[in-house]
Amino acid sequence: MKTLRWEDGALKLIDQTRLPLEFAVVECRTYQEVADAIRVMIVRGAPAIGVAAAFGFALGALQSKARDRGELLAELSGVTETLRQTRPTAVNLFWALQRMNAVAQSADGDLAEMRRAILSEAHEMAREDEERNRCIGAFGAELVRDGDTILTHCNAGALATVDYGTALGVVRAAHEQGKRIHVLVDETRPFLQGARLTAWEMEQAGIPATLITDNMAGHFMSRGRIDVVVVGADRIAANGDVANKIGTYSVAVLARENGIPFYVAAPTSTVDLSLKSGQEIPIEERSESEVLYINGKRIAPEGISAAHPAFDVTPNRYVTAIVTEQGVVRSPYQFVTKGVSE
Amino acid sequence: MKTLRWEDGALKLIDQTRLPLEFAVVECRTYQEVADAIRVMIVRGAPAIGVAAAFGFALGALQSKARDRGELLAELSGVTETLRQTRPTAVNLFWALQRMNAVAQSADGDLAEMRRAILSEAHEMAREDEERNRCIGAFGAELVRDGDTILTHCNAGALATVDYGTALGVVRAAHEQGKRIHVLVDETRPFLQGARLTAWEMEQAGIPATLITDNMAGHFMSRGRIDVVVVGADRIAANGDVANKIGTYSVAVLARENGIPFYVAAPTSTVDLSLKSGQEIPIEERSESEVLYINGKRIAPEGISAAHPAFDVTPNRYVTAIVTEQGVVRSPYQFVTKGVSE
Repeated sequence: MKTLRWEDGALKLIDQTRLPLEFAVVECRTYQEVADAIRVMIVRGAPAIGVAAAFGFALGALQSKARDRGELLAELSGVTETLRQTRPTAVNLFWALQRMNAVAQSADGDLAEMRRAILSEAHEMAREDEERNRCIGAFGAELVRDGDTILTHCNAGALATVDYGTALGVVRAAHEQGKRIHVLVDETRPFLQGARLTAWEMEQAGIPATLITDNMAGHFMSRGRIDVVVVGADRIAANGDVANKIGTYSVAVLARENGIPFYVAAPTSTVDLSLKSGQEIPIEERSESEVLYINGKRIAPEGISAAHPAFDVTPNRYVTAIVTEQGVVRSPYQFVTKGVSE
Repeated sequence: MKTLRWEDGALKLIDQTRLPLEFAVVECRTYQEVADAIRVMIVRGAPAIGVAAAFGFALGALQSKARDRGELLAELSGVTETLRQTRPTAVNLFWALQRMNAVAQSADGDLAEMRRAILSEAHEMAREDEERNRCIGAFGAELVRDGDTILTHCNAGALATVDYGTALGVVRAAHEQGKRIHVLVDETRPFLQGARLTAWEMEQAGIPATLITDNMAGHFMSRGRIDVVVVGADRIAANGDVANKIGTYSVAVLARENGIPFYVAAPTSTVDLSLKSGQEIPIEERSESEVLYINGKRIAPEGISAAHPAFDVTPNRYVTAIVTEQGVVRSPYQFVTKGVSE
């Protein structure tokens, strides 16, 4: 099944907090349940968050007891606010909600017709997401050579999108072209998206992969064991600075130091033209318990506190190119996107 | 209690695999038990491994049923070989065994006298280790300013030595001088020496500390939140290249990129003058299960394999200075040490 799908009037999500040891599906029948699922990372990954929020918005419209258009729009404003408050860094969330609101505003006809248009737009966004990822994959695969070892950080895979993935879309496309590639998977502490999700996707796809701890990547680069780095993005500023999962900046610096190309794969919906540079991107601070506990067991002494910035910013000078659904973009960055602000 | 101590004819070790959730002491009554304790990392840290091996050698002498000097020396050759095979990277192990063998060879008198000289030498090495660490601390503390935030990786603390620590000796000395410091502790996957051991030592010493995942260090450097880096070493080549816990190289590269001084604190017994550069230092490959399991629970899907280089090499160009018991040494490195080969 896909990361998320609409079925029987509900949004069904693969529970990404339980993979890979358990494959479970969570059913959301209200927008509040979707908001919770995004917050606790049952669904995560910038593109997947965007589409989940779109279906959350649609659920808000379907749930509503509004008697007229004005009441429905007012309620959807509250739905939007709830969904916006879930996570601050991935811009796709705000982009998706902006687009859903535009559809709601412009929908003609009665309430049933408005609801139909809203749900239809969410479906359209899911369809587009997958299509865009296949374009990203095709463009990005050209940057991967036969025999390459590819390092990736976090999970920018099928699970971070509706299907196929962005960074892992590049990996999948290179694999589908018959290139013999090997993937080094950063485990990606603290949430272990690499160990749990990317490793699982590579297993499922039959793509050779080896798990490493995040602090091993530099060592393997220095020994000539990594040919190319591909990661996803949660928000890209107009100048090409990239916010992505914590640890991405370190990988990028180490790649440049070792002369290894560092590619970011992301749809243009991840670009935020309203921000001049990455310094303006809000970095989510998550709970310290996600650092202090693994599988419910504490790894550090009582009394010590932990920091937990969930993302970091990679300045554009470390980015070799950004692979979008429109092609491979290089510095100076000129993105063709409508651009949305948070 | 100290990391290791001799009591009632046995070597007692704090079990570092069980800290911080449990404080347990392991008693070794044979050299084979000491070898096992080193191998499974009940005792770890280059200086502590060296002294533990010295007491292991002494236990070998005490266990022996040899009837004359020649028999005892032959047996001790086997003891030495067993202890040498435990871990390949920390040179202090080989240095300690070389020194113990020299004492055994030169000891006069009967077997009882030889045994006495051997055990006495192990005690002397333990005493010297602590003394050297206090010198390292005093020299290193001069490099730390009031108000500094210090990043450290792994555990080069009291637990990695007989007492006081090398990198954490610098931290302790700065704290004892009344400097208001804050320590950022890399958790140090996969064995979590930072989260488990360094955090515990900082708690015990009342030194303010915050735990981070390894991949956060670069982010905090880029935000100006780290003033200085201090780490230990497992082996230093004649040119100043440093082998230390996996992840150290990445920290060093990120520090240089951000203009932050990167100091290595280690006794001269960690210097291996027989190696021209760090490329010659053997890097231990440990079991993949230490990456794939945390607290006995698997974190990755079945079928995926993991790599586990336990150390990496930081080229001397990233090292601002090396703090030894003889003072602060800077490039070009001229170490005053007898130097031992593996």
